[in-house]
Amino acid sequence: MSKSEAADLVLAARKRKGLSWAGIAEALGTPLVWTTAALLGQHPMTGEQAAKACALLGLDEAVAESLQLQPSRGTDPAIMADPTIYRFTEALSVYGPALKELIHEEFGDGIMSAINFRVDIARRPDPDGDRVVVTFDGKFLDYRW
Amino acid sequence: MSKSEAADLVLAARKRKGLSWAGIAEALGTPLVWTTAALLGQHPMTGEQAAKACALLGLDEAVAESLQLQPSRGTDPAIMADPTIYRFTEALSVYGPALKELIHEEFGDGIMSAINFRVDIARRPDPDGDRVVVTFDGKFLDYRW
Amino acid sequence: MSKSEAADLVLAARKRKGLSWAGIAEALGTPLVWTTAALLGQHPMTGEQAAKACALLGLDEAVAESLQLQPSRGTDPAIMADPTIYRFTEALSVYGPALKELIHEEFGDGIMSAINFRVDIARRPDPDGDRVVVTFDGKFLDYRW
Amino acid sequence: MSKSEAADLVLAARKRKGLSWAGIAEALGTPLVWTTAALLGQHPMTGEQAAKACALLGLDEAVAESLQLQPSRGTDPAIMADPTIYRFTEALSVYGPALKELIHEEFGDGIMSAINFRVDIARRPDPDGDRVVVTFDGKFLDYRW
Amino acid sequence: MSKSEAADLVLAARKRKGLSWAGIAEALGTPLVWTTAALLGQHPMTGEQAAKACALLGLDEAVAESLQLQPSRGTDPAIMADPTIYRFTEALSVYGPALKELIHEEFGDGIMSAINFRVDIARRPDPDGDRVVVTFDGKFLDYRW
Amino acid sequence: MSKSEAADLVLAARKRKGLSWAGIAEALGTPLVWTTAALLGQHPMTGEQAAKACALLGLDEAVAESLQLQPSRGTDPAIMADPTIYRFTEALSVYGPALKELIHEEFGDGIMSAINFRVDIARRPDPDGDRVVVTFDGKFLDYRW
Amino acid sequence: MSKSEAADLVLAARKRKGLSWAGIAEALGTPLVWTTAALLGQHPMTGEQAAKACALLGLDEAVAESLQLQPSRGTDPAIMADPTIYRFTEALSVYGPALKELIHEEFGDGIMSAINFRVDIARRPDPDGDRVVVTFDGKFLDYRW
Amino acid sequence: MSKSEAADLVLAARKRKGLSWAGIAEALGTPLVWTTAALLGQHPMTGEQAAKACALLGLDEAVAESLQLQPSRGTDPAIMADPTIYRFTEALSVYGPALKELIHEEFGDGIMSAINFRVDIARRPDPDGDRVVVTFDGKFLDYRW
Amino acid sequence: MSKSEAADLVLAARKRKGLSWAGIAEALGTPLVWTTAALLGQHPMTGEQAAKACALLGLDEAVAESLQLQPSRGTDPAIMADPTIYRFTEALSVYGPALKELIHEEFGDGIMSAINFRVDIARRPDPDGDRVVVTFDGKFLDYRW
Amino acid sequence: MSKSEAADLVLAARKRKGLSWAGIAEALGTPLVWTTAALLGQHPMTGEQAAKACALLGLDEAVAESLQLQPSRGTDPAIMADPTIYRFTEALSVYGPALKELIHEEFGDGIMSAINFRVDIARRPDPDGDRVVVTFDGKFLDYRW
Repeated sequence: MSKSEAADLVLAARKRKGLSWAGIAEALGTPLVWTTAALLGQHPMTGEQAAKACALLGLDEAVAESLQLQPSRGTDPAIMADPTIYRFTEALSVYGPALKELIHEEFGDGIMSAINFRVDIARRPDPDGDRVVVTFDGKFLDYRW
Repeated sequence: MSKSEAADLVLAARKRKGLSWAGIAEALGTPLVWTTAALLGQHPMTGEQAAKACALLGLDEAVAESLQLQPSRGTDPAIMADPTIYRFTEALSVYGPALKELIHEEFGDGIMSAINFRVDIARRPDPDGDRVVVTFDGKFLDYRW
Repeated sequence: MSKSEAADLVLAARKRKGLSWAGIAEALGTPLVWTTAALLGQHPMTGEQAAKACALLGLDEAVAESLQLQPSRGTDPAIMADPTIYRFTEALSVYGPALKELIHEEFGDGIMSAINFRVDIARRPDPDGDRVVVTFDGKFLDYRW
Repeated sequence: MSKSEAADLVLAARKRKGLSWAGIAEALGTPLVWTTAALLGQHPMTGEQAAKACALLGLDEAVAESLQLQPSRGTDPAIMADPTIYRFTEALSVYGPALKELIHEEFGDGIMSAINFRVDIARRPDPDGDRVVVTFDGKFLDYRW
Repeated sequence: MSKSEAADLVLAARKRKGLSWAGIAEALGTPLVWTTAALLGQHPMTGEQAAKACALLGLDEAVAESLQLQPSRGTDPAIMADPTIYRFTEALSVYGPALKELIHEEFGDGIMSAINFRVDIARRPDPDGDRVVVTFDGKFLDYRW
Repeated sequence: MSKSEAADLVLAARKRKGLSWAGIAEALGTPLVWTTAALLGQHPMTGEQAAKACALLGLDEAVAESLQLQPSRGTDPAIMADPTIYRFTEALSVYGPALKELIHEEFGDGIMSAINFRVDIARRPDPDGDRVVVTFDGKFLDYRW
Repeated sequence: MSKSEAADLVLAARKRKGLSWAGIAEALGTPLVWTTAALLGQHPMTGEQAAKACALLGLDEAVAESLQLQPSRGTDPAIMADPTIYRFTEALSVYGPALKELIHEEFGDGIMSAINFRVDIARRPDPDGDRVVVTFDGKFLDYRW
Repeated sequence: MSKSEAADLVLAARKRKGLSWAGIAEALGTPLVWTTAALLGQHPMTGEQAAKACALLGLDEAVAESLQLQPSRGTDPAIMADPTIYRFTEALSVYGPALKELIHEEFGDGIMSAINFRVDIARRPDPDGDRVVVTFDGKFLDYRW
Repeated sequence: MSKSEAADLVLAARKRKGLSWAGIAEALGTPLVWTTAALLGQHPMTGEQAAKACALLGLDEAVAESLQLQPSRGTDPAIMADPTIYRFTEALSVYGPALKELIHEEFGDGIMSAINFRVDIARRPDPDGDRVVVTFDGKFLDYRW
Repeated sequence: MSKSEAADLVLAARKRKGLSWAGIAEALGTPLVWTTAALLGQHPMTGEQAAKACALLGLDEAVAESLQLQPSRGTDPAIMADPTIYRFTEALSVYGPALKELIHEEFGDGIMSAINFRVDIARRPDPDGDRVVVTFDGKFLDYRW
């Protein structure tokens, strides 16, 4: 079973069982965004994590096996154009060069790792309308020969 | 003078004067990433902001006028492929669909605004190597007919 | 069932039942363009809306469930090239920069929201040939840090 | 002088003279969006229109001649990605197929003309925030052999 | 049944029955290029046209229904690269700007409609080798606000 | 001088001199579309043709030399998107496969040459609005090993 | 049966029967490259050619019918990137403009036909390693109005 | 001086001097297609070759230096679309997979080198119209680990 | 069976049998990267190699046959965007022009063959974290007419 | 002065002075590929390195300043298509997925860093023709949340 077939079964089972991503992450003891990404096929799970997730979602062994596979990471450009995802892309096209300047100013020549990296998402209450707060947190890697 | 010509003059003057983006932002009393993005041409400055920035950088009135122009926002794809910027794009291609799921779970059908929006960047010390922490913070907007 | 499979079943059932989009919208008490877009898979319906629509169209529960799913929004570029849709794209390529100028003149730096947004379509009789009148109506959002 | 060079001179003169697009359109007696688009190079002006516009803006004969040239219409994709313009493109990718269905339901097989066509833009006050209202109004053309 | 599945059945039946496009068009009393395009899925047929065509071709009701559907018009770029079709595209890339100049010279600012439009094809005998003569005949539409 | 610089000078001179393409073609004794395309840089002229054209347009020897150069044929995709040119492209995307079928039915396996080829344009009066009639006339070439 | 399904069956049968392309071509009395291309779906065969080929390969009537169909010619870009095919593309990107200059010098303004055209391939022994010799041989066609 | 500027000067000088590519190649004692490609910037010349070519063409030392530079090889896609060049590309899209099959049949798994490679062009008289004969001749390289 | 179906079966069998690529390569007596690439469908195996591999993996004759087929080489761009693969692409976009300069300096005008070529991968222990060492080793081929 | 202008001056000066990349690297005491890449604009030099390089090459202070700028890294796709560079890209399209499998087998889920990374190039004598040996050597980074 491919990881995208497994992801479809996860999405259907999650709806059927009335489970939240937060609930699944808590049950697994794994971070929220990591857990969601892993169940959508972007990270391999350990056997134990996959077994727990499938038990929770009522999915069989074939799904559990698929969740442990090494993924080929990335998302179809058609899906990246969805408005909820596109706003992040747009923000990068406006702020990307500024972030590059500021990383170089603060850290020197290098990058924020996207591998030694975590993402968190939170809701911040605000009288003008609550806010989505997404934090990218990656180790600085300097160009080092 | 186009905003990209102004940005080139800003970059050269900043180097010549030995100024940091943080120092310029502090002098203007404006947020760090906003100030950097504005001086790179992605946001219009007020007349007062532009005048202060040009005084600081030793740039003339033509630059100050350009900094006040309404921009056509966005970044050339060739520049988006720079490794320091690309890591953000890669993170979105791995975590974008998960962020969409979690925004919908927490807030319902809608998006994080990229307009009523701010970005911050910080260095977080870490014994395994300091970390780049970038926070995207946008108002939730629900699909509302 | 995917939302595009559901849309195909809706289109076939609508023809079979001889129903109009206007009639379905009226029966559901929802706006015309919203209803059409939702049944084509671009908006999630509530359980009640989906149930009503499926009863009207003689479609089963699987379709009703699909209509309630959170969509990944957007349209295949091949379909955007259909002449009836392309004329809108062409109009934007001619008038887009003018609309941007006028939004900035009237409202300042910002955008027309495509989320807090509605579209209407009407026929306006005209002796030289009736006219298609499409109204885009979105909340102004100012760039606000 | 190319129409894009003329447009740059118009934009600079408009700022220098403190003129609004609405004011220019009123002085010329031509519709607001049409006038803005024509001065940005998307429509040819008559000799009289071009002369009036250049007198108003303090621009010379070379600009007036350029404004009368037949344009090659369309906008650079990089500019179409500006967020203020992109929201219209996004709306089409969500509502385009629904508009096609509704044009066919109401008018039969055909299109909304983008040639026998006008666009208007208005501000509609709203307690939740004023709204941008853009109206596309084109003659219906049926596929007729 | 999709229009492309119907087109495949039409092509196979036409070969099996030994019918020519010209013969089918004559039997239907419809123009040659229109008939061919409609049977390939680019125009909707009336119920009567579809019934006649299916009787002639020995195809069932499902095909007749599909032939009446409103199409999403256009052709896959891979098929547009076929040499027989590509020669038309190449001719446009050589003569397109000249045709634009001549339309504007003769008619003013506007276009040849591709909707109020017909195409004919004929063989013209020539001692140096017979010639393919294709005529595009569309109503002139002037840019009219 | 490049052929595109020469074309710009031709366009400006034609306007300045108040000459029509038809008038230039008649003076040269060459076909209308061919003459326009050649002056826009898509065909090489003979020395005599170039000299006559430049005399008529009041252009110097450098232009005449450029008009005789062998062109690299084709048109920038941005210009092909102009609505007046695009309608031809759209017509091909609707009727291209039908034209291919009919060429094969009438002539066998082969193509309409785009080299041994001419294009004409005419105005046909019509009570419903005059029509643009464009004729593509190319020698049939059969696939012959 | 589509021509690409037929090609797959031909490839499998050729392997199973241990036949060479050269042997098949000889049996059919048709040129080597033509025969290979036709069996891969790029040329239609006559009924007799298709019957002989299928008898030789042990394939049934459905394949023979498919081999006689008029093809939509061309190859998927992914397959054009195969190194063995790509070397030809690379050679064109290095020598294409030189070949154009030399065709014009020797023949005047025109092209080498790709329709009245044949290709041959041969092995030429060479002490430094045998050589692949591919000959493109097409009728010169002059631009003739 | 870039190699493309040098090529422009070569083309202009060749016309001015009335020299043929064949004549230049003969004078240099280098193969025809190689010489043309080298003067267009696709191969580096030796100092002696460059000096001879510039003496012949009446060009100065700066051109001679440029002709000796190591090129970055390849041709702009816009130029590859010129009909005279495109016919070669089209032939590859029709015959490329057949050539691959035949190279593998005759030589085994490998490629025709595009580096240890030469191209020739010749005119072959033919009563039906003279023919352009282009020979690609490259060393076979087998996949060898 | 296509080579990509065979690759999927190989991947599943390798996991099921708990075999490593290194173990398979050793059993076959073939180089590590070559063996992995061949089993993923990028190189043809001999009958003996395919038989041994399938015996080891518990796969049937159909897989063994597929592994012997001549491949159409190359990888889907979506898979090339996987971060583990993309880092190599990024390195080429940073160091490609430098490698070209150095190949020309050391060897003259020519290339590193990608056909007479091997790749090795090794782990090099390092106190700052072990390193991935990938060696590209290809025969130099000089441009030789 | 942009880094690409500086690179052009470096290339010209290197030729004029008869310096090798190896010689420059030795004089600077920096690695060969790093030095070449830095002088081509892909890495920032320290003030001391830039000064030494410019003294060696006879270039002025403006070049030295440019060499110290933070680059926007990457290479134009047109240059990546040069055959000497393309062979590396082709090798990745053949061996990329195999390298990914082997990195995961040996190191687990993660990547070879392209930042904590070096490249070396060497000539390896071989009786069948000397070989280009390029070594990519990057720190393994595991996906670590």
